[in-house]
Amino acid sequence: VQVRYIIGPDGCVDPFDRGLAYGDGLFETMALRGGRVLRLASHLDRLRDGSQRLAIPLPDTPELLAQIDAAAAEIEHGHLKLILTRGTGPRGYAPPASPVPTVILSAGADAGEPSAEITARTLETELGENPKLAGIKHLCRLEQVLGRLELSHLDAEEGLMLSTSGAVIGGTSRNLFAVIEGCLVTPDLSRAGIAGVMRRSVLETAQRLGFPAEERRLAPAELASADELFMTNALVGIQSLRELDGRVLAGRTVAGRLRAALEGGTDA
Amino acid sequence: VQVRYIIGPDGCVDPFDRGLAYGDGLFETMALRGGRVLRLASHLDRLRDGSQRLAIPLPDTPELLAQIDAAAAEIEHGHLKLILTRGTGPRGYAPPASPVPTVILSAGADAGEPSAEITARTLETELGENPKLAGIKHLCRLEQVLGRLELSHLDAEEGLMLSTSGAVIGGTSRNLFAVIEGCLVTPDLSRAGIAGVMRRSVLETAQRLGFPAEERRLAPAELASADELFMTNALVGIQSLRELDGRVLAGRTVAGRLRAALEGGTDA
Repeated sequence: VQVRYIIGPDGCVDPFDRGLAYGDGLFETMALRGGRVLRLASHLDRLRDGSQRLAIPLPDTPELLAQIDAAAAEIEHGHLKLILTRGTGPRGYAPPASPVPTVILSAGADAGEPSAEITARTLETELGENPKLAGIKHLCRLEQVLGRLELSHLDAEEGLMLSTSGAVIGGTSRNLFAVIEGCLVTPDLSRAGIAGVMRRSVLETAQRLGFPAEERRLAPAELASADELFMTNALVGIQSLRELDGRVLAGRTVAGRLRAALEGGTDA
Repeated sequence: VQVRYIIGPDGCVDPFDRGLAYGDGLFETMALRGGRVLRLASHLDRLRDGSQRLAIPLPDTPELLAQIDAAAAEIEHGHLKLILTRGTGPRGYAPPASPVPTVILSAGADAGEPSAEITARTLETELGENPKLAGIKHLCRLEQVLGRLELSHLDAEEGLMLSTSGAVIGGTSRNLFAVIEGCLVTPDLSRAGIAGVMRRSVLETAQRLGFPAEERRLAPAELASADELFMTNALVGIQSLRELDGRVLAGRTVAGRLRAALEGGTDA
């Protein structure tokens, strides 16, 4: 597969790139520790899934891994962002018959550790539903941008977003888990939302620990009966919700067990 | 308002531009005739509406018009595409407090006149619903891209797209009109779809002609009772549907009257 690589902030993206024109692409934001990508295999799995669903050619793995390694090297504690687009094309939504995808890589250092607890507020901004786009991390993220814009006027660190059919989906940039009657519940993402790499790790870890877990439709009212809520993403790991819509949440047990198991686990 | 202008195909877009990262922007595709933009005021109205809804600063009009004029000049018959993004920003969905928007302009010549009639097929690819994004021409267009991808395997020139709640919305890149019991009906776009500049001209022209018209929710089954169907966009004008899902459509009267009135009208 022929690919155009653009590395670092000084790169130059073609004004006709379809990632810009139509959001026609995917991205991954990965945690770096000691110059290595955490959960790289899971990120590449999701990228592969997205590229298949959007019919964007996936770059050859050896070259892609070499470019990722080079970008990640020498960053002790930070992140690596990868964007994969369908490349340039003539005007119009129709994808070119033989796309030459663009890969954009940029890495940066992050200061400090993420907090173990955050506050959240339910947003008015909703997530549209589309089974063809749900789960994958595509570039069309205006709903999350508008969610963040709404959040900037509220006194909370994360926003909880519902789908237009009224299901709880997750944070603007985090997945949600609820502990309800001893079971770990996370929203079904077959109609909206992004299936996070850390979400997957948490589900796998719960299974390893023998902790009951399910992915299912979750109604906002059910959150009131949750003993514990936490959110996850690849950069922040597991963060307990200290407060949701003003309601103080005391539960930390399951998040703590999962965090300990994840840190001691082999899946990093 | 401080703005970064990028003109023509040789321009260079910052890899951190939020238009690329998140589809955080808007676009307009305008018809050029004799070096001038057709329906420029309507395009700028929609751009203004979109910029207000996304809270992206609108470029100062005199500078924007001068740049548009310069890009359009010397193109006898073609198109001008304008992209407005929120500009660059740090990683994360949260918009920067003081964005410096990017404007990308590119013009090109088009060969020949668009056909007066097209064929269409109803697509399986649906349009998600989101009142906050409906109507405006934002950059998140993966649904249209997937619709076009589906269409490439079908024997038709345009695809008819429904919303996830089952309403008819329009083509992948065209608005739809149906003549039902003597009334011009076009889908309500308050939950999905793009409110086209030519759609607006058609509605205004129908009003001028005293032809009854309404914007409302339209069920797929209603199309079977339509005497006439046509689609519109700023580049192709009005195109009658010769065939939808294999059903041959004979009606051309209303499309013909509207086309004649538009061409003779003052709203170009």
